Amino acid sequence: MKPFMDDDFLLSNETAKKLYNDCAKDMPIIDYHCHIDAKEIAENKEFKNITELWLGGDHYKWRFMRAAGINEKYITGDASDKEKFLKWINALSLAFGNPLYHWSHMELKKYFGFEGYVTSDKGEELWEKCNSIISSGNFRAKDIINMSNVKVLCTTDDPADSLEYHDIIREDSSFSCKVLPAFRPDNAMNLEKKEFTDYISKLSKVCGFEIKSYEDLKEALKERMKFFDTKGCRLADHGLVNVPFLPVTYEEADGIFKKRLEGTIPSFDECEKFRTSFLLFVHEEYAKLGWVSQLHYGCKRDNNTKMFESVGPNTGYDCIASRASGNELADFLDALNKKNALGKIILYSLNPNDNEILDTICACFQDGESVNKIQHGSAWWFNDNLGGMSDQLKSLALNGNLPGFVGMLTDSRSFVSYTRHDYFRRILANYIGSIVENGEFPEDYELLEKIIKDISYNNALNYFGF
Amino acid sequence: MKPFMDDDFLLSNETAKKLYNDCAKDMPIIDYHCHIDAKEIAENKEFKNITELWLGGDHYKWRFMRAAGINEKYITGDASDKEKFLKWINALSLAFGNPLYHWSHMELKKYFGFEGYVTSDKGEELWEKCNSIISSGNFRAKDIINMSNVKVLCTTDDPADSLEYHDIIREDSSFSCKVLPAFRPDNAMNLEKKEFTDYISKLSKVCGFEIKSYEDLKEALKERMKFFDTKGCRLADHGLVNVPFLPVTYEEADGIFKKRLEGTIPSFDECEKFRTSFLLFVHEEYAKLGWVSQLHYGCKRDNNTKMFESVGPNTGYDCIASRASGNELADFLDALNKKNALGKIILYSLNPNDNEILDTICACFQDGESVNKIQHGSAWWFNDNLGGMSDQLKSLALNGNLPGFVGMLTDSRSFVSYTRHDYFRRILANYIGSIVENGEFPEDYELLEKIIKDISYNNALNYFGF
Amino acid sequence: MKPFMDDDFLLSNETAKKLYNDCAKDMPIIDYHCHIDAKEIAENKEFKNITELWLGGDHYKWRFMRAAGINEKYITGDASDKEKFLKWINALSLAFGNPLYHWSHMELKKYFGFEGYVTSDKGEELWEKCNSIISSGNFRAKDIINMSNVKVLCTTDDPADSLEYHDIIREDSSFSCKVLPAFRPDNAMNLEKKEFTDYISKLSKVCGFEIKSYEDLKEALKERMKFFDTKGCRLADHGLVNVPFLPVTYEEADGIFKKRLEGTIPSFDECEKFRTSFLLFVHEEYAKLGWVSQLHYGCKRDNNTKMFESVGPNTGYDCIASRASGNELADFLDALNKKNALGKIILYSLNPNDNEILDTICACFQDGESVNKIQHGSAWWFNDNLGGMSDQLKSLALNGNLPGFVGMLTDSRSFVSYTRHDYFRRILANYIGSIVENGEFPEDYELLEKIIKDISYNNALNYFGF
Repeated sequence: MKPFMDDDFLLSNETAKKLYNDCAKDMPIIDYHCHIDAKEIAENKEFKNITELWLGGDHYKWRFMRAAGINEKYITGDASDKEKFLKWINALSLAFGNPLYHWSHMELKKYFGFEGYVTSDKGEELWEKCNSIISSGNFRAKDIINMSNVKVLCTTDDPADSLEYHDIIREDSSFSCKVLPAFRPDNAMNLEKKEFTDYISKLSKVCGFEIKSYEDLKEALKERMKFFDTKGCRLADHGLVNVPFLPVTYEEADGIFKKRLEGTIPSFDECEKFRTSFLLFVHEEYAKLGWVSQLHYGCKRDNNTKMFESVGPNTGYDCIASRASGNELADFLDALNKKNALGKIILYSLNPNDNEILDTICACFQDGESVNKIQHGSAWWFNDNLGGMSDQLKSLALNGNLPGFVGMLTDSRSFVSYTRHDYFRRILANYIGSIVENGEFPEDYELLEKIIKDISYNNALNYFGF
Repeated sequence: MKPFMDDDFLLSNETAKKLYNDCAKDMPIIDYHCHIDAKEIAENKEFKNITELWLGGDHYKWRFMRAAGINEKYITGDASDKEKFLKWINALSLAFGNPLYHWSHMELKKYFGFEGYVTSDKGEELWEKCNSIISSGNFRAKDIINMSNVKVLCTTDDPADSLEYHDIIREDSSFSCKVLPAFRPDNAMNLEKKEFTDYISKLSKVCGFEIKSYEDLKEALKERMKFFDTKGCRLADHGLVNVPFLPVTYEEADGIFKKRLEGTIPSFDECEKFRTSFLLFVHEEYAKLGWVSQLHYGCKRDNNTKMFESVGPNTGYDCIASRASGNELADFLDALNKKNALGKIILYSLNPNDNEILDTICACFQDGESVNKIQHGSAWWFNDNLGGMSDQLKSLALNGNLPGFVGMLTDSRSFVSYTRHDYFRRILANYIGSIVENGEFPEDYELLEKIIKDISYNNALNYFGF
Repeated sequence: MKPFMDDDFLLSNETAKKLYNDCAKDMPIIDYHCHIDAKEIAENKEFKNITELWLGGDHYKWRFMRAAGINEKYITGDASDKEKFLKWINALSLAFGNPLYHWSHMELKKYFGFEGYVTSDKGEELWEKCNSIISSGNFRAKDIINMSNVKVLCTTDDPADSLEYHDIIREDSSFSCKVLPAFRPDNAMNLEKKEFTDYISKLSKVCGFEIKSYEDLKEALKERMKFFDTKGCRLADHGLVNVPFLPVTYEEADGIFKKRLEGTIPSFDECEKFRTSFLLFVHEEYAKLGWVSQLHYGCKRDNNTKMFESVGPNTGYDCIASRASGNELADFLDALNKKNALGKIILYSLNPNDNEILDTICACFQDGESVNKIQHGSAWWFNDNLGGMSDQLKSLALNGNLPGFVGMLTDSRSFVSYTRHDYFRRILANYIGSIVENGEFPEDYELLEKIIKDISYNNALNYFGF
């Protein structure tokens, strides 16, 4: 019997423990993709209480609370912060086998010194304990980032964003973490959204000219990419239900775009055609800039219309899309490659069944330009847990080049998610250690150290060129 | 080396053994979904011999015998019962890694006191041993149910069924197991079946009015639901190849229905449209009655036309459908929810790749009305085994709320399948125990006992409201 | 800690070790499907060096090298053989968790006596060591086959092939391995290929009459099948992106074929219709001849157009296709069965998610004519590794009849891949042993020996009728 979540948590053999402790634990963090708001870093946000820090915007927790039979009043409703926290603690105490159980305990331990485990009767104690630390004055946004050993942090930003907060952060010489923007132009691509035309107006204003054609849109985006690049941007990101691949001429794409500007929502196929053209265009530009693109696909969003209308997007109503995208993805990468415009890309599917498909697609477009030029990204969102991460690592090792993997990112909206890097490193060290203990790889610590440190930190540094 | 299928079968650690023995083993059984014929309980059926009890209608065994090279004569053909049994014993002796091996040994042990393991030379001995018990007079249908500790048993019934046998069972005050009907209206929905019009005539007769329109059909079904409800029905059930979602107006659905009554088989898309409308309608009614609906999808049936024509349906010729249904399923649940008509639903896919998809869909429609209002059902049919059950439990834990799970059902046509609840509880206890032994959940027996007992029995009692 | 790849490699328990050593290790090999060139056996090829033997045509290795950041010059380019080898050794030394790591070490050990493990500084040593053995005069094609204990070897041949090299091999009475042709008519089926009409001309010439209609094509193929049959052919093979099932009349298929002969590439659906008709036809013929057919599907080939144009097919640019084929496959088998033309067939999907689907399809068409008449083939290509093989074995055991499995094949272009049979047998023995050690099957060595030996050798002998 291993003790509950002690120092050897998830480390099931001696090699794993040695590798984790000697090579992984103390490596700095590069969090190359997250959803933290740069403004909150710039203003060095001070949190009101543990509910704001922990439950504000955390739809993972909200979903679990709903499944546990908790009324919406205590989730996104008008209950007090304390009531919400106590309900959450109740739910958490029985979250058997759920990653929230481990994430929460890791966060409580690292950031609030809480040892032991959460039971429903500990709500009051935890409320007091956490809030006293949060209100101590030493637990503001930058404090948390510093104590987490984060060297680089990439936010996710709209092309129309002024990036003014990134400027402010950069000017603070006492804060050593690099906070860089990343370019996510979903709003400029999704014609079916009712906010689309407003968004184009906003982008027009930012660029200083009216966007009246697809050509104008491309100009606007190129300008914004240039701007982002001057601010240190190294990554782009796209959120897709499925990977579109319906190639069209410029004229057709332009026609669809203009139709939308005139107020008519194009058909599904027309939107997919536009998306195909759009994605080809931006990826050509990313390649010129040497940026890394990320494709996050396989998510069917906002499935609960009633709740979407009441509480909006990103509130816990998304699921894995069941439509397969592999064939289109391969064709998309090939189309870029034929134009000599295939840069570095990281692929993430929300469907865990896509692991092997993704690894075999990546291998078709490696060209020796860099190690793992096309990467299979770390287990994403619903897969960001012990089972999902282990499966991603195994698939990558079997059909790709594991030692060249850029490793973990939090993808989080929270300031206390950095323990997930620790969680990942434990799973990585355990996987590597198990293979070695099983006689499948030699017990050569020089090689093993290199693999662990590279995946924990060095590969990301080199691949993104921070 | 663990001894072969001893008391600790499938229990690989001490915590698992303790949890199984102290919390799971002796809990009563709620078998909320099965295919037992109420008539056989009402008449307290006495079985002719082990072949009738074990091989009559058990298409799992038939499939395995065919793969083992046994001629159909000894399966559904005119060989004697003894010959069939001996052939089955031959096949079983080499069913390495197949769940039939474990199920059969568990049944032989519990119901016939057979220890040891089956070899091809033990056929005669087993034939005698089992038949002597079967013909003892203490091994009739109700005896078996009693000795299996079954408290509630839900059959699966057609809307046109008179439920007369359920009445007879209820009147036997010496028999304490609740035997309740469940409503399965597949025959009223599948327009493409050649028996459809005959079925509508039958339903018309039962209802006392002629069904000439879709509106009439709805009236008939509502009447039958009311009738089922008075007989204690708490569940409905649907068998689907894939989940349809092609919403139509009442008029269009009515037109398709009338076309079929006139003798024309509608197109596949028309059938899917009708099914969409039909399923939305019945689920609105289920929600009003507080029933739980079950959606079983992902099964492509009767693939072997030659054998279907010779031995009919449910004879071992079904397979997992490869067409994905997740997106349609999410849209279907959303459509119900928009009408405020989303009641409790249990989702089962025959495709094991759907586990994670299903759990993320469930989470989109939890609303705090009850714990796990939308449930991911226990591993179904081809997945109802060690691997499939473990995967379902893990997926549910990772993306849902495992402690709220309603647990096991047999889905069986046989009276000696109750050992599968024991099989499930061993797998459950082993999964829970392994997580605890691995330091991933605290060794807190109060919490663990609650989880095990709830999943074994209490959750079903509360969720269905028996 | 198990020592690195020692005699007990992959054998994690005592039962596994006993079974492997006593029953599996020394069984002869039947390699019933590979891509070795009969000419090289006939001419008893002598290899120039380890690069020709190991890296010539091995696109598994090429893919890994590209992912490791190695320039194409050192892969398919004009670097020297030694430079290529050294680059490969560099890449190999860090191929953590990749099957190439194990395959290569097994080959180095068995064929070149290399113990220990590869590091980047051992390139020179290995280059010398391997080449001295290769150039010894005792390491020609037939020597390798002999020292590998191969009793039967089936090549993969085009219908137009003269099979002259098979004749030459048969005439060498000092060489005891049976080398048989297998019939792979992909070139006669894939209308969309630009080489199609040239191929038809070639086939016409071989047959001595001009193929001007689909009927002519059928005649030509029947003639070639008869010819192959006289040369000992027992297997056919098909490579498919997805399984087509769009049945058409003879007239429609003939029209599509003639259109193609006239130079027009038919639409995708027309090609699929033609393929459906073609596959039904050839399978009827195979059944008459008592041949076993193999369907390899789920591979999307030549995804990197730029590299395809530069280095051609089978160079490492294929991936798993994401379009599901299960429903069509079931319908295809049913169509054959309805015509009483369903012979023995082995099914392979490149998508590991298809394991369970395949096993449930197989079960629908078992008819007792032979054990496992429809077989789920061994883990293929990207799945031909520890994880993939284990998953295939488990799925087959759970939903089929594992003891009737025909077992391993190399599918290889290389003469030193026979260690993969050893790799498979270790995984098999370990799987069987683990089940026994876990108390899930009795420790009855008579039964276990039969299972292991049958899967290693006897089943293939009986199933194919060599």
